[in-house]
Amino acid sequence: MLTEDFLNPKSVVLYGASTDPNKMGGRVLANMISGGYTGDIFVIHPKSDLVQGMPAFRSAADLPKAPDCAVICIPSDGVEPALTECAAKGVKTAIILSAGFGEEGEAGKAAQARIKKIAQDAGMRFSGPNSLGCISAANKFNATFSGYLMANKPKPGHVGIITQSGALGTHVMGRAFDMGLGLSHGIFCGNEGDLEAADFIEAMAEDPNTHVICAALEACNDGPKLRKALMAAARADKPVFMCKVGRSDVGAQAAMSHTGRMAGNDVAFSAVFEATGAVRTRSIDDMLEYALVASVAGRPQNDKVAVLTISGGAGIIAADAAADVGLDAAPAKPETLAKLHEIYPLCIGQNPIDATANVGTDIGKAGALLEALAQDGQYGTIQLYFAFVGRSERIKVFSERVIEVKKKYPDLAVVLSTFLYDEYRPMMHEAGIADVLDPDRAIRAIAGAWNSRRLQTAARAAEAEVSAPALPSAPFGGGDEVAAKKYLEGAGLKGPAEVLCQSADEAAAAGAKIGFPVVAKIVSEDLPHKTEIGGVVLNIRDEAALREAYDGILSRAKAAKPDARIAGIAVIEQVEGGVEMIIGGSQDANFGPMVMVGLGGTAAELFHDVALAPAPVSARQAKELVLSTKSSALLTGWRGGPQMDLDALSEAVSAVSHLVADPKFNISEIDINPFRLKENGGLVLDALIGTRD
Amino acid sequence: MLTEDFLNPKSVVLYGASTDPNKMGGRVLANMISGGYTGDIFVIHPKSDLVQGMPAFRSAADLPKAPDCAVICIPSDGVEPALTECAAKGVKTAIILSAGFGEEGEAGKAAQARIKKIAQDAGMRFSGPNSLGCISAANKFNATFSGYLMANKPKPGHVGIITQSGALGTHVMGRAFDMGLGLSHGIFCGNEGDLEAADFIEAMAEDPNTHVICAALEACNDGPKLRKALMAAARADKPVFMCKVGRSDVGAQAAMSHTGRMAGNDVAFSAVFEATGAVRTRSIDDMLEYALVASVAGRPQNDKVAVLTISGGAGIIAADAAADVGLDAAPAKPETLAKLHEIYPLCIGQNPIDATANVGTDIGKAGALLEALAQDGQYGTIQLYFAFVGRSERIKVFSERVIEVKKKYPDLAVVLSTFLYDEYRPMMHEAGIADVLDPDRAIRAIAGAWNSRRLQTAARAAEAEVSAPALPSAPFGGGDEVAAKKYLEGAGLKGPAEVLCQSADEAAAAGAKIGFPVVAKIVSEDLPHKTEIGGVVLNIRDEAALREAYDGILSRAKAAKPDARIAGIAVIEQVEGGVEMIIGGSQDANFGPMVMVGLGGTAAELFHDVALAPAPVSARQAKELVLSTKSSALLTGWRGGPQMDLDALSEAVSAVSHLVADPKFNISEIDINPFRLKENGGLVLDALIGTRD
Repeated sequence: MLTEDFLNPKSVVLYGASTDPNKMGGRVLANMISGGYTGDIFVIHPKSDLVQGMPAFRSAADLPKAPDCAVICIPSDGVEPALTECAAKGVKTAIILSAGFGEEGEAGKAAQARIKKIAQDAGMRFSGPNSLGCISAANKFNATFSGYLMANKPKPGHVGIITQSGALGTHVMGRAFDMGLGLSHGIFCGNEGDLEAADFIEAMAEDPNTHVICAALEACNDGPKLRKALMAAARADKPVFMCKVGRSDVGAQAAMSHTGRMAGNDVAFSAVFEATGAVRTRSIDDMLEYALVASVAGRPQNDKVAVLTISGGAGIIAADAAADVGLDAAPAKPETLAKLHEIYPLCIGQNPIDATANVGTDIGKAGALLEALAQDGQYGTIQLYFAFVGRSERIKVFSERVIEVKKKYPDLAVVLSTFLYDEYRPMMHEAGIADVLDPDRAIRAIAGAWNSRRLQTAARAAEAEVSAPALPSAPFGGGDEVAAKKYLEGAGLKGPAEVLCQSADEAAAAGAKIGFPVVAKIVSEDLPHKTEIGGVVLNIRDEAALREAYDGILSRAKAAKPDARIAGIAVIEQVEGGVEMIIGGSQDANFGPMVMVGLGGTAAELFHDVALAPAPVSARQAKELVLSTKSSALLTGWRGGPQMDLDALSEAVSAVSHLVADPKFNISEIDINPFRLKENGGLVLDALIGTRD
Repeated sequence: MLTEDFLNPKSVVLYGASTDPNKMGGRVLANMISGGYTGDIFVIHPKSDLVQGMPAFRSAADLPKAPDCAVICIPSDGVEPALTECAAKGVKTAIILSAGFGEEGEAGKAAQARIKKIAQDAGMRFSGPNSLGCISAANKFNATFSGYLMANKPKPGHVGIITQSGALGTHVMGRAFDMGLGLSHGIFCGNEGDLEAADFIEAMAEDPNTHVICAALEACNDGPKLRKALMAAARADKPVFMCKVGRSDVGAQAAMSHTGRMAGNDVAFSAVFEATGAVRTRSIDDMLEYALVASVAGRPQNDKVAVLTISGGAGIIAADAAADVGLDAAPAKPETLAKLHEIYPLCIGQNPIDATANVGTDIGKAGALLEALAQDGQYGTIQLYFAFVGRSERIKVFSERVIEVKKKYPDLAVVLSTFLYDEYRPMMHEAGIADVLDPDRAIRAIAGAWNSRRLQTAARAAEAEVSAPALPSAPFGGGDEVAAKKYLEGAGLKGPAEVLCQSADEAAAAGAKIGFPVVAKIVSEDLPHKTEIGGVVLNIRDEAALREAYDGILSRAKAAKPDARIAGIAVIEQVEGGVEMIIGGSQDANFGPMVMVGLGGTAAELFHDVALAPAPVSARQAKELVLSTKSSALLTGWRGGPQMDLDALSEAVSAVSHLVADPKFNISEIDINPFRLKENGGLVLDALIGTRD
């Protein structure tokens, strides 16, 4: 297993070891030794025979056996020979810390390609170059040059950390340490010359010691691989919290400067994370707090949260935050409230429950109050706000009682906000009680953990879904709007009824068949500006008007351009009412086929209220996508108005998603704008399709 | 001055002192003594002659003199007699900590009214009841029962804290302590039976020792007073950071449970904060971090921020955050970049500038890099991300160099993100360098401080503005849409041209005068459903069609109701093109007159994209209000389209704001929907006005 190879090798060979532990390579060796690594360490040194007490070799060729892993921390020009001799010796994995590769211009990129070639030829895999290395709290393996990690050994636990940036990786480790978060492994994959964050996410999805995965990414070489890895985590039911940076234009530009790689279309990342159940976070602290709740308290069973507080104000902050993030601070049941009052008569409110600061003088009651809320039965999470109880002698009684209750309700997520003595934190975490001091942040972290469960469950369900709309049998051969609309009909997306007529009588018959009102429109390649020459008449309400329109259009067209070739006059169903939607399909540079749906029209466009997902999607997923937009309220009985045909819309979105997803249709993009959704069905009013070839 | 009276009395009398410092009153006395209070303390005790070493009196009547302030911490039923005897003695202020008043039902409310009466009759002012008390770091006065504040003396400084909730107040003090934030005073005003948070905000605006004001509020008794206090702070150029809780429905409900008071219309709070320059924050931590930046680093001179980092990833996070909060991470000038490269050749990017982790080995360079960015001249703020430098021996050199540079640029805001040894924090703060570890939060705090400067500057400018649109001389006498539109004409808000005609000839003349196309509409009190009976014809493009429409309408109307009284047929200018806006005026329960403007139509309504401000506003302020909505993009050349007449819209908004603001117009509310804004002018298409009487 990949994590095992990189995080628990039985033996390593180190290039760049120095007797000076302040130099990078020297620090790696010191980290390995002081970290308590139990495997064999072989040291390569050009001159010394002894480095930090370890016998040194001149070359991998001289080693008594092939170590499992090479750790390479030498100037860039030495990396190729080192890797070559390791390959010759039969070393199978490498962690390359050396900088001066893909991040440094064209020469660096070429050097990185060469080391990849050496590894590939030898069947060797590597992490890096330009990486901080790897650390495993579980295996006491520390192959990093971090001085911080030498002084602060990560607390062993079950959260795996993956970052590309080394400096950000140390920051993450530092904050995790401050929060008392238990870690399994930390992998800092640098330039990803071979193995990528996605590979390590997939490995951690398999790794029994990792229960929660945190990744901070700046770039992505292989979108589909990342998506696959995230789905592997979803299948393993392991939460993924993802701090993908470079959301903004300036940030994306900076990400390119930093990594030498394009950041990619940010909304596509969000869509893929959503579809695979990875929860995106804005900052490192958010990521770690979400992981703390998920790993310590467990992910909530539902979106309902009860707030028990000794400060009315903190309770209100929690309630506000819950509303912000879509958690439901539903009132406790009447019998629960009765019980709470029996236990402590001063309790105020239905949820949040304010036990008031007075309960501080009788802190043992906290356990009974918590239990009453647990027994209510509706809440997936109970958030406790207890101010300074955690920094007073009362924490002893409080923690005893609360832990006692928590033990009885293993599926209940309990998150505590209190100023907490550091020495009480491990005991709380051990008992499954996560602590996040700020009441607003605590609620957001609970939402992060709940969303992980919700989205991963949905991702698994979507994967299991069979989805096969009726689709055309032939590829799209290209062409204009007319061709596009015709092709879409083969996928079940119809436009308005339309008959091309050669006489006023034909037009009258067509009008009767289609049903009034209708539109009459000249069809002529030679008259592109139909409206300007009076070639279009709207709102024709009866046969007489239609005959008049027919003759009028024809004479105006002839007057405008006497020699125009006229194919006829189209009589078209006039579509009234309904809501204008847009449906789109495209190919994302990172992730490939995507499908998009949203409200049409100028105002909606202004608010970017569209939903995006990797294609294809089933009609059921498409409906969820539609319902995730704010403007879907307009489709579902807005202000007592009609219910629009969501099924028709969802099926259209699903069909579009299949058409862009499968190369056999030869479609690069589809733009249906507008799709007029009605109470019964929906119609393509205008469409364009781009081809792949 | 109010703060002086409550936070630096020369002498106090304490009710409720106990020999047991674990009891509430005992803790107050212990806090006063151990806090180092230098004034006279008189203690009232029913039996003991000596309490915690202080001689005790039976009643205020027995005191040798009238103390400046009474601190009352006894059960609620004793408060009235205590206050009465204090009043008789001539005590002028009181801090009432006792609970059991307004927060406890009708009886409590009545008791609270009685103590207010006692105080009023005696010309006495009080804070509380149900309050944690007051603390002054500056004056070493601690009249609270907080055990936490006994153990953790606040660091003296210039940030004033005001909360209503006591528990939240302690939380705020605890977090301020953790952040090393220097405080002037903390006032926890509980039920606000007499003095309110607004009174103390106004007092702190005057208090020379307070430079920054933080308030966490759950309710507001007197909106106009709060607004006035916030304007006083704006005039004094003292930032106000406001954590007003109860934003959500559940939160507002909880606020009512907690305080016994309605939370009020939350959007009106936001509008008043915006108009007075108070910066609203979501959480306590945000409030304090904004205050830390404003008080330590100073508020930035502009919205431009440079980010200097030793982690590319952290720089990207900062750039993303800057985009989120509207700060401008503009590229450094070419000469600055050249200088940066000269100082440290590995520097990457134009802003953020990534000096890479390597600079850690030559940390003295940080000062020169900072100075190069300072000399660039465009940046109001420089954010430094230095990972673990602050928790390593390198902090010594780093802090020396950085402080040296900062001294030369007193107007430059410098905010440092680093894991910082606690002992280095005071030195950094002393030098004007604020520290916020998380790079995302650091940027948000910088934005909070900048917005404070921006909004207070705007608030002062608005106050100085003379604004006198032409308004009607008579009050509105009530009536329907027609009356409303007629009244608004007197305020310069015109509707479409309209002529009431009695014959087809009159109609033809009217059409010629107004200009085609026109609308013809029956005017009859007896025919309310004009459209249904064919009483309205749109889109009349010439005289013949108008004559035909006139006759047709008349005959259809007579057919529909033969005895209908017909006032005539109105020929109305048909308004085409432009954008539909809504303009509204209303009376908020807390703050009184408000004005609102936004895009009209269903989609816009869905996104709640409207702007609200306390009325009246000048046309200039109205324009800013309009431009603060997202949809204003539609008015300013959207997708190459026309520029709408923003002046006409702004003048209309200003006029509406004056009409609802001044009671002499007898208007409770105005609803103009739609207001059709065109390239040249704008028209009231429909309007309703409510009256005050």
